[in-house]
Formats: sequence, structure tokens, C-alpha cells
Amino acid sequence: MGRWEPNARGRLEQAALDLYLERGFERTSVAEIAERAGLTERTFFRHYADKREVLFAGSSALQELLVGTVARAPEPAPPMEAVAAALRAAAAVLQERQEHAHRRQAVIAANVELQERELIKLASLSAALAEALRRRGVDDDSASLAAEAGIAVFKIAFRRWTEQAEQTGQADQAGQKDLSQFIGESFAGLKAVTAGT
Amino acid sequence: MGRWEPNARGRLEQAALDLYLERGFERTSVAEIAERAGLTERTFFRHYADKREVLFAGSSALQELLVGTVARAPEPAPPMEAVAAALRAAAAVLQERQEHAHRRQAVIAANVELQERELIKLASLSAALAEALRRRGVDDDSASLAAEAGIAVFKIAFRRWTEQAEQTGQADQAGQKDLSQFIGESFAGLKAVTAGT
Repeated sequence: MGRWEPNARGRLEQAALDLYLERGFERTSVAEIAERAGLTERTFFRHYADKREVLFAGSSALQELLVGTVARAPEPAPPMEAVAAALRAAAAVLQERQEHAHRRQAVIAANVELQERELIKLASLSAALAEALRRRGVDDDSASLAAEAGIAVFKIAFRRWTEQAEQTGQADQAGQKDLSQFIGESFAGLKAVTAGT
Repeated sequence: MGRWEPNARGRLEQAALDLYLERGFERTSVAEIAERAGLTERTFFRHYADKREVLFAGSSALQELLVGTVARAPEPAPPMEAVAAALRAAAAVLQERQEHAHRRQAVIAANVELQERELIKLASLSAALAEALRRRGVDDDSASLAAEAGIAVFKIAFRRWTEQAEQTGQADQAGQKDLSQFIGESFAGLKAVTAGT
């Protein structure tokens, strides 16, 4: 009843991901998430609007990070450099929470509606990146192209990072590449395919 | 009652777009579309599953065209060349139906749910393009990157083509650029921003 619950948000998120992975997203209720976390439904709704929100609440922080990094990129940096800096910043945050990121991805991969929601969130990130570039004086088309290409690079790097985790498991984390390395490789790949036009 | 209706599909599409633009997509019913087209609801449902389908029925033909063009690209063509050929083929088809394409776009731009559906369809096109490239022996990442970059180029070219139509109107079609020209410019723009990494 309004009392302070230590790390309620983190416990709810953990419980939700556990249940989504065990039973599937569709077959999990808010009541079950709250129960698993040892909290009330009322506490759940103080932190999240609904059970989908648990998976997507982080994307506004990610967007702020991307936009902020683009805004702070050194002035003469070409647009793609600013985008690359933003993606590296996002990669560092995701790398810190790598287990969470992979578990979340597994939940999303199992549900078409969540995949669609993720696509829409990525499109918002692209629009926000493009807007941040425009505010730096980048022309409209270059801003959109750099942002869209950056998000494409990110999607492919993220997928490879996820596949690596699936293949090697938690046991053998030595010798694994960071998300930021995959992003670097993916940028190089984009440059190679684009130069070949 | 099952009798043959000349060009029922085209009439229904025309009536639906008229109504969506006049009243909004949400406020238009299938009954009204059928009535405007001088046909029955039953005829409507022989051609379209629902009123949203009228807007998206063309995307599977577009997908076949893209995939077919990639498959038929001359063998040593680099992946981005094959994608560019596919987009030019799609552009030629859309250019032929330019008024329809612009009206459809105006309906979609006015409705968030339709915008989301369009994003999802574009993601399917990207996945289909990537798969067509893989079947040509292109490695996984290059295939995905070329497809995603190609769809990004297409989106931006399509937007500029739409803006041109909005600005100049139907009256002055001389001196307007074709969608394929915008695609060429957009590919050049991508190359420029990507080279600057």
C-alpha cells in the first residue's frame, strides 16, 4: 500500500522476463508477474502501464542516449560519424546488461506482435537520430539516410551479438565479441556493399 | 449475386481511396465503399479481406517483383546492384500508377496504425530482398545490409517523390522527376554518407 519496495522495478522486470520465457508472453498475466516478484499488482501499475511496457520501457532512455550523443559529437564530424558514436554509446549500455538484452530478445523473437512493436520502436529511433542530425545542420536527405543506415547496421550487429550468445551460452564468455565490435564490423560491411554500387 | 462485375476490384479500390481521403480511414465502412463503387459488400469481400487490405494488397506483387528482379540480375552483379535493379523495377510500376500511389500515401500518412502496417510491410520487403540475395550466394550480413540499405534508399526516394507531387500538384507535371531519379539520387546520397565514416 504505497510503502517503499526496494528495487521494485528491477524485481518486476526480472519476474516478467522469467515468466515470458517460461510460459510465453501471451500466457503471462500482470497478476502472475507481481506474485512472482513478491509485490502487488498495484505496485506493478505504478511502474509499468501494461505487461508489454516492461519490454519497451528502456527504449526512451536509449533514444535519449542516441540523440544526446549525436548532439555532442565534435562539430565537424560527418553525419555517419555522429551516428556511429551514438551507436557505440548505446552498445556500451547494452553490453553492461547483456544477459537482460538477450533474454528480452528471446521473448520478442517468440511473438509476432512484439516483433512488430520492436520494428516500430526502431523506426522511432531512426526518426529521432535523423532529427538530431538535422539540428546539427545536416541536410534532410543525408540525415534520414545516415539514420536509417545506422539503424540497419545496429539491427544486424545486434542480431549477430544475439546469435553469438545463443551459440556459446553463458559458460564460455571468453573470446566473445562485444556488441560494439559487431557494430564496427557491420559499418564496414555497409561501406563495402554501398561502395559496390 | 456472383454475377460478373467489370473491374470490380479497381472500382472498389478507387471508391475506398476516395472515401479514406474524404472522411478518414477510421470513419469509412466496407458498406460505404461498396455503395460508392455501385457494388455489394459481398463483392467487396470476394476481393479484399477487410478495408485495410485495399491499401496493402499490392505489396505482395511488389515483393514478387523485387525478388524476381534480384534473382534475374546478371550473375557477377554485386548485391547492391541487384537491389538497385529491383528498386528501379518497382519504381517503374509505381510511376505508372503515380496518382494512386500518392493518394494511398496520403491515406497512410493520416493514420498511425496504417503507418505502422506500412513499416511492417517494408520490413517484410527487406527480409525478402535479403533472402533473394542469399540465394545468389551473398553472405548473410552483406545480404541483410544491402537489403536494409536498399529499403532505406527507397523510403527516402519515395518521400521526396511524394513531396514533389504535393508541392507541384497535378497541374504542372512537366519538369517533375520520376521516382527512379529520386532513387538514383538517394543511392548517391547513401554512398556519400557511408563513405564519410
